[in-house]
Amino acid sequence: MFLVRIPSTSGCVVAQVRTVTLIPGDGIGPEISAAVQQIFAAANVPIAWDPVDVTPVKGPDGAFHIPQKAVDSVNTHGVGLKGPLATPIGKGHKSLNLALRKEFNLYANVRPAKSIEGYKTLYDGVDIVTIRENTEGEYSGIEHSIVDGVVQSIKLITEKASRRVAQYAFDYTKANGRRRITAVHKANIMRMSDGLFLRCCREAAQQNPDVQFDEMYLDTVCLKMVQDPNQFDVLVMPNLYGDILSDLCAGLIGGLGLTPSGNIGESGALFESVHGSAPDIAGQDKANPTALLLSGVMMLRHMDLHSYADKIQTGCFQTIKEGKVRIWRSFLLVDCPCFTLTISEVQ
Amino acid sequence: MFLVRIPSTSGCVVAQVRTVTLIPGDGIGPEISAAVQQIFAAANVPIAWDPVDVTPVKGPDGAFHIPQKAVDSVNTHGVGLKGPLATPIGKGHKSLNLALRKEFNLYANVRPAKSIEGYKTLYDGVDIVTIRENTEGEYSGIEHSIVDGVVQSIKLITEKASRRVAQYAFDYTKANGRRRITAVHKANIMRMSDGLFLRCCREAAQQNPDVQFDEMYLDTVCLKMVQDPNQFDVLVMPNLYGDILSDLCAGLIGGLGLTPSGNIGESGALFESVHGSAPDIAGQDKANPTALLLSGVMMLRHMDLHSYADKIQTGCFQTIKEGKVRIWRSFLLVDCPCFTLTISEVQ
Ligand SMILES: CC(C)[C@H](C(=O)O)[C@@H](O)C(=O)O
Ligand SMILES: CC(C)[C@H](C(=O)O)[C@@H](O)C(=O)O
Repeated sequence: MFLVRIPSTSGCVVAQVRTVTLIPGDGIGPEISAAVQQIFAAANVPIAWDPVDVTPVKGPDGAFHIPQKAVDSVNTHGVGLKGPLATPIGKGHKSLNLALRKEFNLYANVRPAKSIEGYKTLYDGVDIVTIRENTEGEYSGIEHSIVDGVVQSIKLITEKASRRVAQYAFDYTKANGRRRITAVHKANIMRMSDGLFLRCCREAAQQNPDVQFDEMYLDTVCLKMVQDPNQFDVLVMPNLYGDILSDLCAGLIGGLGLTPSGNIGESGALFESVHGSAPDIAGQDKANPTALLLSGVMMLRHMDLHSYADKIQTGCFQTIKEGKVRIWRSFLLVDCPCFTLTISEVQ
Repeated sequence: MFLVRIPSTSGCVVAQVRTVTLIPGDGIGPEISAAVQQIFAAANVPIAWDPVDVTPVKGPDGAFHIPQKAVDSVNTHGVGLKGPLATPIGKGHKSLNLALRKEFNLYANVRPAKSIEGYKTLYDGVDIVTIRENTEGEYSGIEHSIVDGVVQSIKLITEKASRRVAQYAFDYTKANGRRRITAVHKANIMRMSDGLFLRCCREAAQQNPDVQFDEMYLDTVCLKMVQDPNQFDVLVMPNLYGDILSDLCAGLIGGLGLTPSGNIGESGALFESVHGSAPDIAGQDKANPTALLLSGVMMLRHMDLHSYADKIQTGCFQTIKEGKVRIWRSFLLVDCPCFTLTISEVQ
């Protein structure tokens, strides 16, 4: 950590520069990461980046591991920003995105979906946050074939992880001035597993009577969500349901190119854009850095750097509102002027 | 089976009257079933109803079973229409809706979601069919607690069931003049189970080269579905994903009160409305029979009674288009004139 003088509205202040891990990622990752770095620099954000490569390397045990340098960086700094990672194709290769969530025990995945003025979709005024259990459930990775043609996959639900994410949802809701949490489940079908998850949510609700709480079946949430998303506020749920609902909500406001995300753990947090690495347009200055930039904004809030977060967020939304960028239906900008335009907004 | 003379546009024809099981159901079930029976009678549909009660009764083994009379009726007639069933609350009681699907091995659940003229939603021209594996997957019912606070639920995928539903999807697609099938999966996460399901779909695709085929992650489907549902045609998927996506699609066109469904087995088929039993408005002539009526129309097509199906379907859509019924945001009519209005349309 070192100190620099940076300008602020009230004159010069001394700010601590904190170091943050940067995982630029694959495909369009490096260029959108560079855009975010430029914008952060223009806004005088008092952080230094520690860029690391997470491409798995073969260890002495013959297995592939995330390089130690990368692991150490996240563990030391406790916070990181991450671009998209391509999952190597072929058997045995697990998603690197998931490996990172596991490596750092990032138990809560937070994905706000908020309508952006100037980016028109069928829905107005959407403002939903999905909070997804991020370590177990259908993502346990435990599967086996009993006899030929018969496969079992294990959905693993623990009281510990369910409690932890439920408590996180209530903490988040209060810290962000929100009002209501809906626990999403299929406990009518998976009575024991989703039942346990639901029970943990109910217990957390009892301990937090200042937050409204209700429960809804996943299928019902999907149905109601497309009819009127404004009836929802914060949603908490097991891993796979979060995967589904966060994408659905992203769709309502314009896609994964516009939605930030944070993975929160006990001793670290990783903020990431969850769109693909889009190798087909990589290196052409066409990629849209909005999701990564807004993930960076989430990171700044996590670090209590709210004034910088506000500044960049305002600049980003202003830029989109003024139509200075062109956003395609899907999650990538096509033939847009370089997003560095945003820099002028935040300076 | 007996014969009656019924009028047709081309004069008098001799039609075989076939008997069909009717499970009126709970809550609003009896009144919407009565409405459907009235409409069918007005349209001179050559079927006779065999109404049965499926409320479980305690057997000599102490366990609850669907009454033998009901089981025999479906097995004899091979086709039935079913209203909503309330699931008794309390441990050990499984959903009766699911019990029926299991009892008769109804392996494919077909749910068309088609925009209805005169019932305005955010989406126009939706025309999607979800085909859901209906016997296994996350609905296996196999769960256990390993140690206190740790629960496993088993998702069971078999080659047999996956092949069967995949083949059904292709048969359905061709028989209904549709063009494209999308297999929905999370084989990036559940590599073995969803992987097996996907492989079976690919094999069926190879055997049916006249139908277009593609594959998509469930989360991506949800995202794209809310952005532009018209890019989808027929979707085939494991049990839980079908539960989710069919509700999502129902939401796009107005809710579960407007969407029919069919459960197809090797030796029988059960058509049902999948909305709730709405005990709060039961017996007040407020319930909307559209979903059950359109399920009846699906049943008629399954029985190759297309001209009757056309007649009733046209009458139903005409009635809605002319605004003779008032449909509430959610899935039930509120303060609407009795749906028997439709009868005048089909005579
Ligand atoms: C990339 C994929 C493994 C991942 C998931 O399924 O969780 C993605 O869809 C996400 O939501 O982050
Ligand atoms: C009633 C419930 C058990 C059922 C399910 O989960 O399948 C329902 O949601 C459905 O889609 O038919």
